[in-house]
Amino acid sequence: MRVYNFSAGPAMLPLAALEAARSELTDWQGSGMSVMEVSHRGKAFVACADETESLLRDLMGIGDNYKVLFLQGGASGQFDAIPLNLTAPGDSVAFLNTGQWSAKAIKAARTQGLAVDVVADEAASNYTTTPAEGSFTVDPGASYLHYTPNETIGGVEFGYVPDAGGVPLVADFSSTILSRPIDVSRYGLIYAGAQKNMGPSGLCVVIVRDDLLGHPRPGTPAVWDYAAMAAADSMLNTPPTFGIYLLGKILAWVRDEGGLPAMAERNRAKADALYGFIDGSGYYSNPVAPDSRSWMNVPFLQARPELDKTFVAEADAAGLTTLAGHRSVGGMRASIYNAMPIEGVQALIDFMADFERRNG
Amino acid sequence: MRVYNFSAGPAMLPLAALEAARSELTDWQGSGMSVMEVSHRGKAFVACADETESLLRDLMGIGDNYKVLFLQGGASGQFDAIPLNLTAPGDSVAFLNTGQWSAKAIKAARTQGLAVDVVADEAASNYTTTPAEGSFTVDPGASYLHYTPNETIGGVEFGYVPDAGGVPLVADFSSTILSRPIDVSRYGLIYAGAQKNMGPSGLCVVIVRDDLLGHPRPGTPAVWDYAAMAAADSMLNTPPTFGIYLLGKILAWVRDEGGLPAMAERNRAKADALYGFIDGSGYYSNPVAPDSRSWMNVPFLQARPELDKTFVAEADAAGLTTLAGHRSVGGMRASIYNAMPIEGVQALIDFMADFERRNG
Repeated sequence: MRVYNFSAGPAMLPLAALEAARSELTDWQGSGMSVMEVSHRGKAFVACADETESLLRDLMGIGDNYKVLFLQGGASGQFDAIPLNLTAPGDSVAFLNTGQWSAKAIKAARTQGLAVDVVADEAASNYTTTPAEGSFTVDPGASYLHYTPNETIGGVEFGYVPDAGGVPLVADFSSTILSRPIDVSRYGLIYAGAQKNMGPSGLCVVIVRDDLLGHPRPGTPAVWDYAAMAAADSMLNTPPTFGIYLLGKILAWVRDEGGLPAMAERNRAKADALYGFIDGSGYYSNPVAPDSRSWMNVPFLQARPELDKTFVAEADAAGLTTLAGHRSVGGMRASIYNAMPIEGVQALIDFMADFERRNG
Repeated sequence: MRVYNFSAGPAMLPLAALEAARSELTDWQGSGMSVMEVSHRGKAFVACADETESLLRDLMGIGDNYKVLFLQGGASGQFDAIPLNLTAPGDSVAFLNTGQWSAKAIKAARTQGLAVDVVADEAASNYTTTPAEGSFTVDPGASYLHYTPNETIGGVEFGYVPDAGGVPLVADFSSTILSRPIDVSRYGLIYAGAQKNMGPSGLCVVIVRDDLLGHPRPGTPAVWDYAAMAAADSMLNTPPTFGIYLLGKILAWVRDEGGLPAMAERNRAKADALYGFIDGSGYYSNPVAPDSRSWMNVPFLQARPELDKTFVAEADAAGLTTLAGHRSVGGMRASIYNAMPIEGVQALIDFMADFERRNG
């Protein structure tokens, strides 16, 4: 029996993709081998990787002037790799700080010797808001503007694409990629760890505009040198083959379900239902400003926080798993990525209502 | 139908491990979730990672004064990460150069600003030998001595542990880890990409002695900072969970088969059979010096190289796959890691004999 898994990542995956993988786990395409066992340089796997990239390009509308890279090290690795590829020590970079993941990216940029200009910082709201559109200005001398479209821990999401004032816009899309259509052409670089909407952990996708490539700092590790990796079709060394393969299965599922417009409609409906229930309840609350609420990660509190462990345990027993809030903030958090069906959100709402009746 | 897969990596995996993974791919331990879908910080996965590390420690006899890290980026990533963690720019490091993987590690060390002292270089034999034991001396001022116990492309393997003259010994065990017992206590650092004897690609294991930790260069990416990763049990960021899980399955298989002594006995028998056949043939040849032949990777040539494509295609049709030699050297190569049974090697020998009869 499958459960409704609200983990923030690694997270619930489409059952259809898992079942497809299972059906050929010891014999892929009649090869007599698992996809994990074939050479990454063989025709079969190269075709699989090409097809995966092609699906991603089609679904996201990625222009030919962008490279798609399949890397390792997670989005956290990119916190360092982006400065190494796009800047020289001492350069200035602009950041929007909307929470814990922004802060980690800022810390890494400083570690890489950059002058960080935080042009908007939502500390005053305790990171429950996004900056108002047009409320910040980016110095044209900055190498780029970095932001975090969706803060997985805070549950804060931008409702607009920030104006980078002519410098490249760089975005950590780890927890919101594929959740809706985005206009890739507005970005210089998009990166995302796979383990929310794209597949298993261990794969990181980087989408980078051609003109930003080719000036890595001396000492940039070869496996993180974007230009070198692009020239080698992400196979400068052995890529995470199973992750790329499973990403392909998941992209095919997204396509078959109607693509990103269908995902957006579904995700909006799920989020509306859950936030609507929370707001209508006198017992539960969500701290995030309504215009900045995440479609993907919904943190919530109950009026009796001493019952948080009881809530999580009883939900788990009811087949609604991994609802404990992030260790840094407590409470509960429901991550409702693409693979979570509306039925799972409704089951959570029903449970929450029942829990409130019994304990509120 | 499963084939005998001679790929150099990603490579053949034990069928028992794949079948175990398949049986629980959508419902791990009765959780209603795939192991790929559970939080890496949840109790179940933490226990899985702990058990995997414990199995590795037991099988390899890793002392308590060593940390075991599960990282990303492959062994190639470690070519940079090792200098970043163990040296300062301008430091001197010693290398043994026995082929293409040694050369890549040397190149990265130079990129990281190190003074590389190649204390033995097998260029004179076109990298078909290992340096004679005792034929080189390591400057005691070197930060470490690096070598490649097994060259996957050249098929050259050390029959002894080099004397590092008092400095830490660092070794890229990617293609020979778990193939036999090794005395870990003689090493300062052992690293290995998983995709030969340990599991799927995308996981890299680093075994490092405590006293070498704690002096990373400024700017070392956090996900490659050994001390920080050790302090976080390799979960500073999301680890490649499926790879760690499958490594656990494969280690359990190694244990159940009799551990590393049993692997050594089996691997020696496989290598002896294949080299014995090649040497006894007037048609096939292996260029490597007998005392330096790899148990894992057996490159071979035939007297009529114009038939190489025919050989590979006919072998493939007979269920003996991925026998083409590395693109840089041509000919054929049979990689016979732990998961390759003696029956597979015998089937290859039978095919080779038949091919020679028909074409020799």
